[in-house]
Amino acid sequence: MTTVITFLSDYGYRDEFVGVCHGVIAARCPTVRIIDLTHGIARHDIRAGALALRAALPYTPAGVHLAVIDPGVGGPRRAVALATRDGNRLLVGPDNGVLQPAAAIFGGIDQAVDIGDSPERLSSQSTTFDGRDVFAPVAAALADGVALDAVGKQITPESVTTHALPKARVDGDALVAHVLAVDGYGNVSLDASPQLATSVGITSGAALDVQTTTAHAQAHHGAAFEHVAPGELVAFTDSRGALALAVYRGSAAQQLGLHPDDELRLRAR
Amino acid sequence: MTTVITFLSDYGYRDEFVGVCHGVIAARCPTVRIIDLTHGIARHDIRAGALALRAALPYTPAGVHLAVIDPGVGGPRRAVALATRDGNRLLVGPDNGVLQPAAAIFGGIDQAVDIGDSPERLSSQSTTFDGRDVFAPVAAALADGVALDAVGKQITPESVTTHALPKARVDGDALVAHVLAVDGYGNVSLDASPQLATSVGITSGAALDVQTTTAHAQAHHGAAFEHVAPGELVAFTDSRGALALAVYRGSAAQQLGLHPDDELRLRAR
Amino acid sequence: MTTVITFLSDYGYRDEFVGVCHGVIAARCPTVRIIDLTHGIARHDIRAGALALRAALPYTPAGVHLAVIDPGVGGPRRAVALATRDGNRLLVGPDNGVLQPAAAIFGGIDQAVDIGDSPERLSSQSTTFDGRDVFAPVAAALADGVALDAVGKQITPESVTTHALPKARVDGDALVAHVLAVDGYGNVSLDASPQLATSVGITSGAALDVQTTTAHAQAHHGAAFEHVAPGELVAFTDSRGALALAVYRGSAAQQLGLHPDDELRLRAR
Repeated sequence: MTTVITFLSDYGYRDEFVGVCHGVIAARCPTVRIIDLTHGIARHDIRAGALALRAALPYTPAGVHLAVIDPGVGGPRRAVALATRDGNRLLVGPDNGVLQPAAAIFGGIDQAVDIGDSPERLSSQSTTFDGRDVFAPVAAALADGVALDAVGKQITPESVTTHALPKARVDGDALVAHVLAVDGYGNVSLDASPQLATSVGITSGAALDVQTTTAHAQAHHGAAFEHVAPGELVAFTDSRGALALAVYRGSAAQQLGLHPDDELRLRAR
Repeated sequence: MTTVITFLSDYGYRDEFVGVCHGVIAARCPTVRIIDLTHGIARHDIRAGALALRAALPYTPAGVHLAVIDPGVGGPRRAVALATRDGNRLLVGPDNGVLQPAAAIFGGIDQAVDIGDSPERLSSQSTTFDGRDVFAPVAAALADGVALDAVGKQITPESVTTHALPKARVDGDALVAHVLAVDGYGNVSLDASPQLATSVGITSGAALDVQTTTAHAQAHHGAAFEHVAPGELVAFTDSRGALALAVYRGSAAQQLGLHPDDELRLRAR
Repeated sequence: MTTVITFLSDYGYRDEFVGVCHGVIAARCPTVRIIDLTHGIARHDIRAGALALRAALPYTPAGVHLAVIDPGVGGPRRAVALATRDGNRLLVGPDNGVLQPAAAIFGGIDQAVDIGDSPERLSSQSTTFDGRDVFAPVAAALADGVALDAVGKQITPESVTTHALPKARVDGDALVAHVLAVDGYGNVSLDASPQLATSVGITSGAALDVQTTTAHAQAHHGAAFEHVAPGELVAFTDSRGALALAVYRGSAAQQLGLHPDDELRLRAR
């Protein structure tokens, strides 16, 4: 029996939405422990939700992992529950790509069910709060030990929506990378691994040219923010294991005018 | 013995206020599970708190339900604990109307006590944090099995402050409704039930005229936000079971300039 | 065996950082209860974090107390775990002053260890998320019963960084006080105890002159916000037990233009 449910959403902290889902889960499975990953994902930002989920799950106990970023709620998008190939994780959410990047790091999807008409769902006049009516009760049932194929209708793993992410590349002596995400500190996470960056000399101690479509800047690659003066740009390996840019005691995203998917060229000097 | 306390407030997420109340509860009743409904209610907004509490409780396990929206803290307003007529719910909070709409859906108030001088309260030099000093310790005592009449002095259920809500009405072929609440997405929840709306032809598939005191707009009544283009207005039954207005990927409140209690006329075309 | 971990940080609510730390703790010590004090401390504001921690801990069960306000992460600052002299509290966080004011109210520091290379830490390529990689796993190990001297290398209690706070004084018939903190309501907490204020006649019922470096205002000292009209200034003993200023249904910090460490002169009229 699974005893942990993690929960990530864009419900925010102003309304009762998160609390209601906790209530539904506690009513169905009183002993389960719920770990809120975050509910502050930007409204409808499937990309940001998918990346946060993928970043968090390796650090949580195996269990049921609920992720609700759901701009298509009430429409034709499917609601799904997925088992990963490593046999440890059950993912529950809308079939819009929010779950797939996380599933991929656990070996991909072994089994998938459509839970839109799940016997575990609540009946409701509303079509706008599937977190409460579909996803939370199904997650609670799975945590309570109900089998995956008992909470929905089998669908093929291949039919589950994937989420395409940009992909950094080497171009001559430059690294062409893209903004994957911007965190609450304004730190910019790129789509380049430290290994790829190192292959063009972007590594600890290097001085860098950073070229965006609108700005040019210089940065230092160093382990600690303190290695540069306040206001200066630093490149580093971030907590998600990706090459990232930060401004010591400032916002790199703001200073460089960067948004998700923006392209940058980085070069060691 | 009750084992769930739900907790709703306007304490926000910046200060230690919510955590301190959790600490007080955990110290008094270590085994109780606390479900945070939300602490993001707008400062001092009794209406918003009362509606969020009423919306959430049907989905939570029965237990002790703590709600602290308390602009009158330190003043003459009473602190109360209430038992509902259905015998399942204990509500704890200031006597300013925040509890009453929730009590009403569980049959009304069966028994009420004034907990301002409760033997369970903490002694404190401060008069501004009754969440910590009065409400949390009394809720924890009730969750621990202490009887209602042991935590305060009996008062009459009729003396408990009610919260008057606006009331939609039919006027000819129009529905005259009012804004009850605006959620974090900018969705506008009205005081009209789907049944009342249907009685004037406002139902799934209908095209609507929406008249505010300052603006005129057209809307479609449809189950899913995706049924209209981004930026267009949609009417729907919201998660609280009320007629509501939304803008697909936008804010209906902002677009129509609507605030709580504003009146609208809706008419099927 | 300790069974409560309290957790305070400036990680905010937008990213997965807090959830990841919860995951790390739950993986290491599945039965521990985590009480989030707040994660909304202003970014890098060691002062605000230290004061919130000191204000909250007297109200929580004794346990492990994790506090991560860490502008120097990745740099030379030490990571530490401390046992307080009263024998009840274990504090875990960066050695930058955030822990010391809380330790002081439990008798000061009895024993201290440097946990930067703790056998309990996670291995990580990242140097920017010690909450996940160092502080959370060490806190979980301590909660699980591992001894303090087994999670790090002994250091002297005297070497732990202290946090200097301003100190109010009496000057003739005036109280010279300083802003310690501003809460989410805009209430201004000063460094003066009610006892010191009373010594110059600043006590319940008194009319006050309040002089800042840029403004002059009048206030009333009264127990309840309701004792003044909306928009008027009130002095009171706040929930942290300090002399404080508030504006009924407004922000004292905004109205007087006050920030932490600003000096004020208060005088009874």
